[in-house]
Amino acid sequence: MEQGKSTNVVWHHATVTRERREAMNGHKSVILWFTGLSGSGKSTLAHAVEEQLHKHGCRTFVFDGDNVRHGLCADLGFSADDRVENIRRVGEMAKLFLEAGVMALTAFISPFRSDRARVRSLVPHGEFLEIYCRCSLEICELRDVKGLYKRARAGEIKDFTGISSPYEEPEKPELVVGTGTRPLEECVDQVIGLLQERGIIGAFPASDQWAHDNSTSR
Amino acid sequence: MEQGKSTNVVWHHATVTRERREAMNGHKSVILWFTGLSGSGKSTLAHAVEEQLHKHGCRTFVFDGDNVRHGLCADLGFSADDRVENIRRVGEMAKLFLEAGVMALTAFISPFRSDRARVRSLVPHGEFLEIYCRCSLEICELRDVKGLYKRARAGEIKDFTGISSPYEEPEKPELVVGTGTRPLEECVDQVIGLLQERGIIGAFPASDQWAHDNSTSR
Repeated sequence: MEQGKSTNVVWHHATVTRERREAMNGHKSVILWFTGLSGSGKSTLAHAVEEQLHKHGCRTFVFDGDNVRHGLCADLGFSADDRVENIRRVGEMAKLFLEAGVMALTAFISPFRSDRARVRSLVPHGEFLEIYCRCSLEICELRDVKGLYKRARAGEIKDFTGISSPYEEPEKPELVVGTGTRPLEECVDQVIGLLQERGIIGAFPASDQWAHDNSTSR
Repeated sequence: MEQGKSTNVVWHHATVTRERREAMNGHKSVILWFTGLSGSGKSTLAHAVEEQLHKHGCRTFVFDGDNVRHGLCADLGFSADDRVENIRRVGEMAKLFLEAGVMALTAFISPFRSDRARVRSLVPHGEFLEIYCRCSLEICELRDVKGLYKRARAGEIKDFTGISSPYEEPEKPELVVGTGTRPLEECVDQVIGLLQERGIIGAFPASDQWAHDNSTSR
């Protein structure tokens, strides 16, 4: 605290730290970086994990194409350079959420190892958890939720990951989830388990680990 | 919820809404946009407001040059175009914090009405509160906390707001605070009062409105 010249204004700096925010929230913050092919279930899994975390009082936010591409990255297209810049900004933004004590869940294909490594390097060790949503191209293409594979095969979309542009599998992700073949609930449990192992969140009471719409247990 | 083709993955969309986050937090989210000359006390005031809000259990985050210019906007310089883009990105980022249920306090000179109006237009009416930190150029220059005015007067910094580039005063800010002449505590009270008036936060218990280091009341 230093006194401003010739005025009665006292100069403060930031006093609300990440540690104070985490203490208030009752959990640590972290970046959960979901990566995988288009249609592999990244966004679905991220939102399902968020639902469980929110039910247990955690502060979370999911970033995906919907809320980033139309806003912060609205000036970017899909060229190689623009994709790199898109992932860079998402990483920097996730870092600010981390500072704010909020768990940042990101759901982007992010096909290149170098881009993911760059985001990882932005934050201290252990605060970037790479979660590989493993799902074969066959299954992704069969799902084709947004009809993008069909358009990519028809040559209407250039540089489409898995078809005309490579997906570089993570070499040492913190977690691999079988989003192609395993039930969603099981995948969510794996992610929650990772967060508990790492001491990001505490144990959930067994009785309310799941609260499905069709559950009869509560 | 729709069933994915040929797999057992259930497709979820976002279920954790801003409303649910606000309910958990016990306050609404909002963008508090502090604007004013360099040295007018924007960052000081924003951090002091944040301290009070945090003490009362609110989720907050302050954006300023320190955490934005080195990260999200590290690719931008200080040309006219880059400044516009800087403010645009800060606005888009603040909007995501708003979605996340966190009060976003921004402390940027943001000298142009058009830039501030653009950010205002990003969010629903009443969720962007423009706070004009009114402080005369004389006082800002006398303080010269970062030595920038001296360098600007010496011609070492081009397009410096107030010296060689205009500051466009807000025409209809939600609040004007006299950061040049009034005590910091009074300015903080004004901002907190605005948030209470607008129903963003509830009333603070009178007994703990202030907890100064030198207070003997607690």
